[in-house]
Amino acid sequence: MATLDFLNFVDANKDSFIQRLAQAVEIPSVSGDPVHRDDVFRMASFLESQLKNYGVETKAVDLGTHVMEGQKLKLPPAILGRIGDVKSKKTILIYGHFDVQPAQLSDGWDFPPFKLTRDDKTGRLYGRGSSDDKGPIFGWINILEAHHTLKKPLPVNLRFCFEGMEESGSEGLDEFILAEVKKGKDSWFDGVDAVCISDNYWLNTRTPVLTYGLRGISYYKVIVSGPARDLHSGVFGRTVHEPMTDLVALMSRLVDTKGNILIPGVDEMVPPPSEEERQLYKNLDYEVEDVELSAGAKVALSEDKASVLMGRMRLPSLSLHGIEGAFYGAGGKTVIPAKVAGKFSIRLVPPQTPDNVHPLVIKYLHDEFAKLGSKNTISVESLHGGKPWVEDYKHWSYEAAHRATEAVYKQAPDYTREGGSIPVTLTFAEALGVNVLLLPMGRGDDGAHSTNEKLDISNFIQGTKLLGSYLYEVAAGTKA
Amino acid sequence: MATLDFLNFVDANKDSFIQRLAQAVEIPSVSGDPVHRDDVFRMASFLESQLKNYGVETKAVDLGTHVMEGQKLKLPPAILGRIGDVKSKKTILIYGHFDVQPAQLSDGWDFPPFKLTRDDKTGRLYGRGSSDDKGPIFGWINILEAHHTLKKPLPVNLRFCFEGMEESGSEGLDEFILAEVKKGKDSWFDGVDAVCISDNYWLNTRTPVLTYGLRGISYYKVIVSGPARDLHSGVFGRTVHEPMTDLVALMSRLVDTKGNILIPGVDEMVPPPSEEERQLYKNLDYEVEDVELSAGAKVALSEDKASVLMGRMRLPSLSLHGIEGAFYGAGGKTVIPAKVAGKFSIRLVPPQTPDNVHPLVIKYLHDEFAKLGSKNTISVESLHGGKPWVEDYKHWSYEAAHRATEAVYKQAPDYTREGGSIPVTLTFAEALGVNVLLLPMGRGDDGAHSTNEKLDISNFIQGTKLLGSYLYEVAAGTKA
Ligand SMILES: [Zn+2]
Ligand SMILES: [Zn+2]
Ligand SMILES: [Zn+2]
Ligand SMILES: [Zn+2]
Repeated sequence: MATLDFLNFVDANKDSFIQRLAQAVEIPSVSGDPVHRDDVFRMASFLESQLKNYGVETKAVDLGTHVMEGQKLKLPPAILGRIGDVKSKKTILIYGHFDVQPAQLSDGWDFPPFKLTRDDKTGRLYGRGSSDDKGPIFGWINILEAHHTLKKPLPVNLRFCFEGMEESGSEGLDEFILAEVKKGKDSWFDGVDAVCISDNYWLNTRTPVLTYGLRGISYYKVIVSGPARDLHSGVFGRTVHEPMTDLVALMSRLVDTKGNILIPGVDEMVPPPSEEERQLYKNLDYEVEDVELSAGAKVALSEDKASVLMGRMRLPSLSLHGIEGAFYGAGGKTVIPAKVAGKFSIRLVPPQTPDNVHPLVIKYLHDEFAKLGSKNTISVESLHGGKPWVEDYKHWSYEAAHRATEAVYKQAPDYTREGGSIPVTLTFAEALGVNVLLLPMGRGDDGAHSTNEKLDISNFIQGTKLLGSYLYEVAAGTKA
Repeated sequence: MATLDFLNFVDANKDSFIQRLAQAVEIPSVSGDPVHRDDVFRMASFLESQLKNYGVETKAVDLGTHVMEGQKLKLPPAILGRIGDVKSKKTILIYGHFDVQPAQLSDGWDFPPFKLTRDDKTGRLYGRGSSDDKGPIFGWINILEAHHTLKKPLPVNLRFCFEGMEESGSEGLDEFILAEVKKGKDSWFDGVDAVCISDNYWLNTRTPVLTYGLRGISYYKVIVSGPARDLHSGVFGRTVHEPMTDLVALMSRLVDTKGNILIPGVDEMVPPPSEEERQLYKNLDYEVEDVELSAGAKVALSEDKASVLMGRMRLPSLSLHGIEGAFYGAGGKTVIPAKVAGKFSIRLVPPQTPDNVHPLVIKYLHDEFAKLGSKNTISVESLHGGKPWVEDYKHWSYEAAHRATEAVYKQAPDYTREGGSIPVTLTFAEALGVNVLLLPMGRGDDGAHSTNEKLDISNFIQGTKLLGSYLYEVAAGTKA
């Protein structure tokens, strides 16, 4: 159990906590826009100074340079932190990111995106980064401030790794983590017993969750080319093999309307769920109606809740994203495009990996293309990939988070797997060889990456208590 | 036979004819770009003054206004002309267009597009509009100049209708022609016996052609929508019906790799060719190799010449142009597009019309969509359409053009049908009820609408003789 003085401190300092989050939101640390690169650096400095304020030893790690929109740019630093070195205490590594998605009022925001708008009627804090991921980061800072001010020792040793490029592919981070881990005793990650990441969301607006799985991804580009240049359909229609005809035929053979993946062997790699496992999904506090509400239309693949939730969490999926090189504008252009590239990706679940799925994809596309009898040519490229991750949720770190949730929210958390990817999760799991816990602060309707991103005040305040209580429960649950 | 003094005048004035064409090419009369609208007006004035110089009575017809890129713009005038009113002579109506396609050096031109570059080594005149359609228009002006200077009466009465919006949908022209025809005796088109249009090309670089057919077109947009907004494939992959999956399935069912149209009833409307008709295509001076040379790759649908040429000229075709609303950029975006619109068009041949094909298309798309069992919704829009046109090529106008070709080029012309559309052809045929002849000046490799558009000097000079000789042959062949 968290101590009462900590919990009281959080309640008493609600306004100043929100004030500090507002300062962070006002820094438009958009990592994907070169214009805002200085702001990402500014945000890194602000965060580092906050850590130092509360007794954390820090280091800003230079991650080198990269090229964006043709410009060579300095990468924002990773901010490392270290506080506590008591042998008898567990050591928890906290990850978060201080960069944000782009946002402009003209995208359709009802509030200035880079100002934290507090709406006490709805109890919400609107602003870019409020939920993704400045809210959670400053939740940790709140905990540090509380203990520093109260002159209380933290129940565990803490290590921090905050990055400023998460929304832009985490450039440079994996390499840094792998190199740092190799330093052994000198590594900032030495002695870490478990990792805790607060960078995802509850399924709904009611029930806290612990997340123990993420899907991987394999992103493909299948290119069909033939004519040396775009042709006029009046002159060439029905005289030549048209790349679009071939590509659309191939793309139509990848996935069916029900979501079944038609590439032989891909769906088959995943064992069917036991009745017990189905029951886990049936018990989640998330209904087919919630999925449809979130999608904005009654388009769920099934009426069966477990099927729909398993489709997101424990089954692979294949989505057709679009076609590069074809006519995409409004109106009617009579072009026969000379070279078209279909984009699709497969979300992966264990035991699938980009490597073991790849030969199946390649063989199938070439086999099906051969069946078409076209004189065009095909090539297939893998654009990016990442392995799926599923964690042992009976680990002491999850048990601590479970008890902390019950203490703060007076209810047990749902155990969920996410359909998307947070690549650093797998990097930490593999590089450190320790358990990783995803312990979200925000709700499913926070709208990360959308207009009007928000964080409920209660999620910020109770979430701060949750993260702090988690540390206390780790200490309590793992006493020697 | 054209008179020797006319033919000699053409040879003697080659350089000044090219000089005048250069003046025309230097006016960037791009109808599709509001920035160049003044230039289209300037080109209209230049053309009208040339007609007047040589004794043609003219009228610049105000076609009103239209909206382009959100701007209300004045339409360029149609330039009408009238010379000769001798009852015993035939009256021929000449159509051409003085606007051009856009062109920029940065598109990949080897020459400034709006300057006529004369290359005496290759015998070519490079420049936007050189072949489409300023070369042919100024061929007619050359003929007028010759007869005016030589003080020779023309062998026929001539009427002219030149427009400045052909490359942008001929806005306003159809309405004008239909209204003008209704004026009867007061119409500028009163008494016209046949129409001659020089605005297409030889099949190859060797053999002149007379063109007696054009395909029609029906352009469709099939829209599949479901979710209220674009979704993230990590979160929604395999939970909802994805519009792209449905659309690609539909598009894959429209046409097969061999070019066969899969919409029941569409291909079946067209009677198969008789062996005699097949023979006509076999005899054309255009080989499968020519098609592939033109396409830039060995991608012809068949090794059989007649099949390939009939695919272009006497069969319908269906081309998939692209998808609006899907991801079309480079790189890998993991979006599930909420609303996607597939674009395809069907080139039509008699007895097909947009009207009789439409119900087949609509029924098929809805039937196939129903088979998918998707909860998304479909709608189908016809974006534009035009009827096919096939002319009686045994008419005296074609016979005159045949003899003129033999006289100028010392060879008989090929008789061809074109795969594309020139909508005004059908308008004249239907509104005036007279024979329309397509008598091209340029070669198949002129690259109208492409970079490095050119007209061979010999085609400009011999073409001027051809058009002039055609008038003499009309007179000779139709003497009372
Ligand atoms: Zn995030
Ligand atoms: Zn994010
Ligand atoms: Zn033209
Ligand atoms: Zn044109």
